[in-house]
Amino acid sequence: MKKRQKGKGLTPRAEDFSAWYNEVVQQAELADYSPVRGSMVIRPWGYGIWEKMQRALDDMFKATGHQNAYFPLLIPMSFIEREKEHVEGFKPELAVVTHAGGKELDEAYVIRPTSETIIYSMYAKWVQSYRDLPVLLNQWANVMRWELRTRLFLRTAEFLWQEGHTAHATESEAEEEARTILGVYRTFMEDWMAMPAITGLKSEAEKFAGAVRSYACEALMQDGKALQAGTSHMLGQNFARQFGLTFQSEEGREEYAWNTSWGVSTRLVGGLVMTHGDDVGVVLPPKLAPTQVVVLPIGRSDDQWAVVAEKARRIEAELNDRGIRALADQRRHLSPGAKFFEWERKGVPLRIEIGPRDVERGEVVVVRRVSGEGEARKESMSEAAALGGIENRLAALQRRLLDAARARRDAATYRGEVSSTDELGDLLNEGAGFVYSGWSGDPGVEDRVKNETRATIRVIPSREFRSDTAPTRCVGGGGANMEVVWARAY
Amino acid sequence: MKKRQKGKGLTPRAEDFSAWYNEVVQQAELADYSPVRGSMVIRPWGYGIWEKMQRALDDMFKATGHQNAYFPLLIPMSFIEREKEHVEGFKPELAVVTHAGGKELDEAYVIRPTSETIIYSMYAKWVQSYRDLPVLLNQWANVMRWELRTRLFLRTAEFLWQEGHTAHATESEAEEEARTILGVYRTFMEDWMAMPAITGLKSEAEKFAGAVRSYACEALMQDGKALQAGTSHMLGQNFARQFGLTFQSEEGREEYAWNTSWGVSTRLVGGLVMTHGDDVGVVLPPKLAPTQVVVLPIGRSDDQWAVVAEKARRIEAELNDRGIRALADQRRHLSPGAKFFEWERKGVPLRIEIGPRDVERGEVVVVRRVSGEGEARKESMSEAAALGGIENRLAALQRRLLDAARARRDAATYRGEVSSTDELGDLLNEGAGFVYSGWSGDPGVEDRVKNETRATIRVIPSREFRSDTAPTRCVGGGGANMEVVWARAY
Repeated sequence: MKKRQKGKGLTPRAEDFSAWYNEVVQQAELADYSPVRGSMVIRPWGYGIWEKMQRALDDMFKATGHQNAYFPLLIPMSFIEREKEHVEGFKPELAVVTHAGGKELDEAYVIRPTSETIIYSMYAKWVQSYRDLPVLLNQWANVMRWELRTRLFLRTAEFLWQEGHTAHATESEAEEEARTILGVYRTFMEDWMAMPAITGLKSEAEKFAGAVRSYACEALMQDGKALQAGTSHMLGQNFARQFGLTFQSEEGREEYAWNTSWGVSTRLVGGLVMTHGDDVGVVLPPKLAPTQVVVLPIGRSDDQWAVVAEKARRIEAELNDRGIRALADQRRHLSPGAKFFEWERKGVPLRIEIGPRDVERGEVVVVRRVSGEGEARKESMSEAAALGGIENRLAALQRRLLDAARARRDAATYRGEVSSTDELGDLLNEGAGFVYSGWSGDPGVEDRVKNETRATIRVIPSREFRSDTAPTRCVGGGGANMEVVWARAY
Repeated sequence: MKKRQKGKGLTPRAEDFSAWYNEVVQQAELADYSPVRGSMVIRPWGYGIWEKMQRALDDMFKATGHQNAYFPLLIPMSFIEREKEHVEGFKPELAVVTHAGGKELDEAYVIRPTSETIIYSMYAKWVQSYRDLPVLLNQWANVMRWELRTRLFLRTAEFLWQEGHTAHATESEAEEEARTILGVYRTFMEDWMAMPAITGLKSEAEKFAGAVRSYACEALMQDGKALQAGTSHMLGQNFARQFGLTFQSEEGREEYAWNTSWGVSTRLVGGLVMTHGDDVGVVLPPKLAPTQVVVLPIGRSDDQWAVVAEKARRIEAELNDRGIRALADQRRHLSPGAKFFEWERKGVPLRIEIGPRDVERGEVVVVRRVSGEGEARKESMSEAAALGGIENRLAALQRRLLDAARARRDAATYRGEVSSTDELGDLLNEGAGFVYSGWSGDPGVEDRVKNETRATIRVIPSREFRSDTAPTRCVGGGGANMEVVWARAY
């Protein structure tokens, strides 16, 4: 199969971004379709990226006081049905277990689409006093939402994610938690994924089913569509009331706890691909690349091979000792060209080529997956210079990817007065990604925009993302009460 | 709830080991029952142990050439039914999804009880040539087996595990893989869990449904019952035939691949508890303890508290900087006694107590969770001596736990000629855990032993675990063809 795929070029992004995405995800061996409707297989290269994401996020969660736990996959149907908005939001997407152990069950279980209900039922058991608060837990888990139209990583029936669930004694503490995590997500996306995100509040129509307020990180993909990359919800006391999550306050009163929940998923891998990929393939930010440097020995005869392969092994070992994820590709049945092709498609940031003459001269060839302005893509240099400069080259690439993504996003962002849905539609059709406009707050306007332009309010932006001059006109006509960001979205 | 539990003593192990286990798992906050039949909640302390186990095993898998991937939770019913023995083994325990997205499904899905079928169907798509082999993948996942009698960690409907699945070009390579992993498991259990395991082959009656040969690690718990702690299966070409997993050999022939699968689960957490726990609570080997050193400031007045709390914070920071997992317990509403009780029940290896006078004298009190012969449980010493010696104390405890567990196992092991099932039953009733005996190989004898004594063949031991002198008589009468190890098991 590798052979079959090797020959295939990718559809250029400009021609059909969606086709490009599907091809690159499969050809870079990030993921594959499975025999299970809507479920994907995450292949080692894609899972390796997810593992790096998990490690980084997990460290950030722990640094902010959270611990991991694990709650059941199955949720009693009656639990899901208890919070009214929650069940309305999730019921159409549930997968239901009706039989188990050879019998029909008295009460059906659903495979968790998210775990608020089962988790807060447990917190109700564990929390008695204000001294037991806050509860700050996270779980890494699979969830299932039966989607009709699926896309690898972006929308699948089953996906992997983390879901944080917290309980607090006061509303303000819960609000602070929801915002803290929003900041953690944004920092992760910028620092690790090199993917700039704008943050803000969701409109009532777009918020999480059961939340009081939903915050989100929204990133702009290369095709001008937005990706909701992470969400953090202030749940108020909605779930606490349904599951009896009460505590005795310092003053001795019985009170309902305040909850938050927040999550990011394997969807981020899709976001990474759509943020940085080019017509050659995936481009990985060094911090998340499972392999940061691939070392390629190049030699025809057995004698040549012995020399270059040994050198490649030594360089691999030296880099690994230094904490750089290096891999010497020792496969002899593939031509150098086939290897170049494979590793570029997979997005490895740096390649070191070693031919027999290079070894004689003490040189290697360093090839960048993508080069910056005024930077050679391919350079011969001494082995010492090549190896000594690896960390700097990786760090520079990480920075450059973020700068480039930010520049693309800014170029595709429109700010100004937008006085009609027609005008908004024109802006989007002319290539605008994020369109800032005024909004009265009327859900009818939001609904009309969606019907006429397919754009939705991505966020009511956080302070730092608002325009210097607030728009005065609502996109639906009349005056604005707030600024919002519109986009067509994944 | 913490308050309620604090007061409670544990049932002594000698009185009722099973009650002790259930109590200690809940009171140490390792796990709790959930509202979902047979499913448990793994609480942060239990999950923290599992995370340490995962990290250690994952590193070992990667060091032996494996990568992680992720396959679907759901498996089409028709896949499970394809391998005859496999379906017979798992069908009674399946949980079945019949409805999803608001509709009845055309074909039902089962929640994976194990993933051979779905995984080998994907390998069949990916593998064409011998050059694509071996495939060496692992996944960390949840699985579900609808059990009637459940025990926290030991037997639950849903559990967490890793399942390795490999494909090889030759039988001997697959056989070597199965044995390599058996060795990895045994090493992990000894080096990390301080839990000695014997290894060997399962009898036909006890092997994995669909395997040609199953290897296992068996550990002996303090109550004399065996725990199957990890298994590694040589699957032959059974699954390859059912899922068309073929490859073109170097000689150009179409051949079926050879598979192995292997797994350990959250059951190991239960094994850890039953191996080392005492009547006070859990005892954790330092390498797997989420917190290795708890630092307790002790002071009544606010002035005293300020001094000891600050000292505790500094010690915590210094130890954490040195890579020791330390935690300063700054809760003021709990008495020192309540904290001692809590951390001893949870099994933290070392405790450092700091009172106001200790600070004046530059001293601290070091308390070991369990002390060895000639070792003080509690010692006052200079802060420098205390902190400087932490690594050695932890390493010594790790070794001592393994030695103690090995001594208990050896003391509860009977080797010699056992000529009848009655004799075997007597040995077990008199306290033997592992009983070595000869066996003809007749499954009828195995069946009879099980009915009469409730013991099963745990393994046909690997060479290094066999007796110096092979037994000559079969436990069912007549001559022996091999040596086996019997035990009553979890």
